[in-house]
Amino acid sequence: MKLLRYGPVGSEKPGLLDASGTIRDLSGVIADLDPSTISQETFDKIAALDAASLPEVSGDVRIGACVGRPGKFICIGLNYSDHAAETGMQVPPEPVIFFKATSAVCGPNDTVEIPRGSEKSDWEVELGVIIGKEAKYVDEANAMDHVAGYCVVNDLSERAFQIERSGQWVKGKSADTFGPVGPYLVTRDEVKDPQNLPMWLTVNGHKYQDGSTQTMVYGVQFLIHYLSQFMSLQPGDIISTGTPPGVGMGQNPQVFLKAGDVMELGIEGLGSQKQTTVQA
Amino acid sequence: MKLLRYGPVGSEKPGLLDASGTIRDLSGVIADLDPSTISQETFDKIAALDAASLPEVSGDVRIGACVGRPGKFICIGLNYSDHAAETGMQVPPEPVIFFKATSAVCGPNDTVEIPRGSEKSDWEVELGVIIGKEAKYVDEANAMDHVAGYCVVNDLSERAFQIERSGQWVKGKSADTFGPVGPYLVTRDEVKDPQNLPMWLTVNGHKYQDGSTQTMVYGVQFLIHYLSQFMSLQPGDIISTGTPPGVGMGQNPQVFLKAGDVMELGIEGLGSQKQTTVQA
Repeated sequence: MKLLRYGPVGSEKPGLLDASGTIRDLSGVIADLDPSTISQETFDKIAALDAASLPEVSGDVRIGACVGRPGKFICIGLNYSDHAAETGMQVPPEPVIFFKATSAVCGPNDTVEIPRGSEKSDWEVELGVIIGKEAKYVDEANAMDHVAGYCVVNDLSERAFQIERSGQWVKGKSADTFGPVGPYLVTRDEVKDPQNLPMWLTVNGHKYQDGSTQTMVYGVQFLIHYLSQFMSLQPGDIISTGTPPGVGMGQNPQVFLKAGDVMELGIEGLGSQKQTTVQA
Repeated sequence: MKLLRYGPVGSEKPGLLDASGTIRDLSGVIADLDPSTISQETFDKIAALDAASLPEVSGDVRIGACVGRPGKFICIGLNYSDHAAETGMQVPPEPVIFFKATSAVCGPNDTVEIPRGSEKSDWEVELGVIIGKEAKYVDEANAMDHVAGYCVVNDLSERAFQIERSGQWVKGKSADTFGPVGPYLVTRDEVKDPQNLPMWLTVNGHKYQDGSTQTMVYGVQFLIHYLSQFMSLQPGDIISTGTPPGVGMGQNPQVFLKAGDVMELGIEGLGSQKQTTVQA
């Protein structure tokens, strides 16, 4: 299933994308798609419904982030060997973990604000994993049971704030709108192999990123096991698993976002995003 | 006012500590003390009530964290010059920001779990600031208008996870129960000068930390202004402002927590906490 949230910022409603591409309203079934409702039980209940019986959402609606009020937005750094190389860093001996502020979350096609004082705002297409069941000290063998589904994330980054401003990385990852998430939460059963998903990103039509989750260093299954040794993962938590090569910082000369730029990005089977930038 | 949350984990109710030290139930006034209710309007409404008319909460109730489901748990690193010295690090030229997982939040007297594999779990008494109104690109002059109040935080830290495990610090700050918050949210009007608050922490009765917010490098007012340049601060967000000297890592030889240890800590006017540790 493809689950989503639609409507104005702050008052999104839950929806289901049916087989024909029509959004069906799920407000009568769950209050929202958020930490209080994301679970296998909820998904089973929705799957048992006749989609055609749900109200059709017509018109040109805004799509929100596919998870409301996530408790954590966890990111993995330098998790593609080619990306580590382009940033001049080594692949770490174990995963690098950082957080993005949950207040940075926005819809997949919302306007992205370039922070005041920014000269190095950059893009990163990433596979997002959404947790469906609490995970604490889980074995690798059972790790995938804790995945609700997957989504596209643009892990926007201000490189000077991230790297040149006394630390830690969170400082360059957390501006409002620096976390477009969606358009859909695609349930785990629809993603045959999360480690074989082509992914891409363009800026103003130029393809900068053209990779695949095949070259991820630490895969989804290991990451859930690993993260769960340091913190509990809760339903609705988002894990953004790192980016393949082609970020602006890795170009020669470097390229960074300026107001009016248009980013488009996607992952096979998970849909695509499109954002225009403005100066904050 | 001193506002709090009481009751079992996950189903806390809001309460008010009245002048005689009795908890009064606020369930009839607000659903919870959380991002959806924390505001000046809510505080004005509560202040206008006759506390004696509110239901008295009797018996020995558990006290929860004084904010429910905070959106962000922001921490400031190396923000006391003496503490920076004891850890062998420099006071940074501008604040170091890191996050603690919101899933680490617990009540002020809850049992603290020492994570599996931990050999370097450590304590940090800190002044917590709770945001009452959205702050985005705010001037220093107006920064304090965004403060709802203050509380005690124990910023528990696993030093090996934090420093020796490929980064970032969040890895050693985020275990469940590594964030006791409370007992009270003391409203801003009751704290004359947040930069002149004695604070202390003992382990098994030995006083390790005995400091004051007077020696904080970057004060509350500046921090709110500063943070708001990098991310928006939202009602209910917690900012833990750093710790004075006396952490376990700074002892010679170093001292770390073991199961059965008892931590007690407090800040003048904000109440105190007491936690016993267990092995996770």
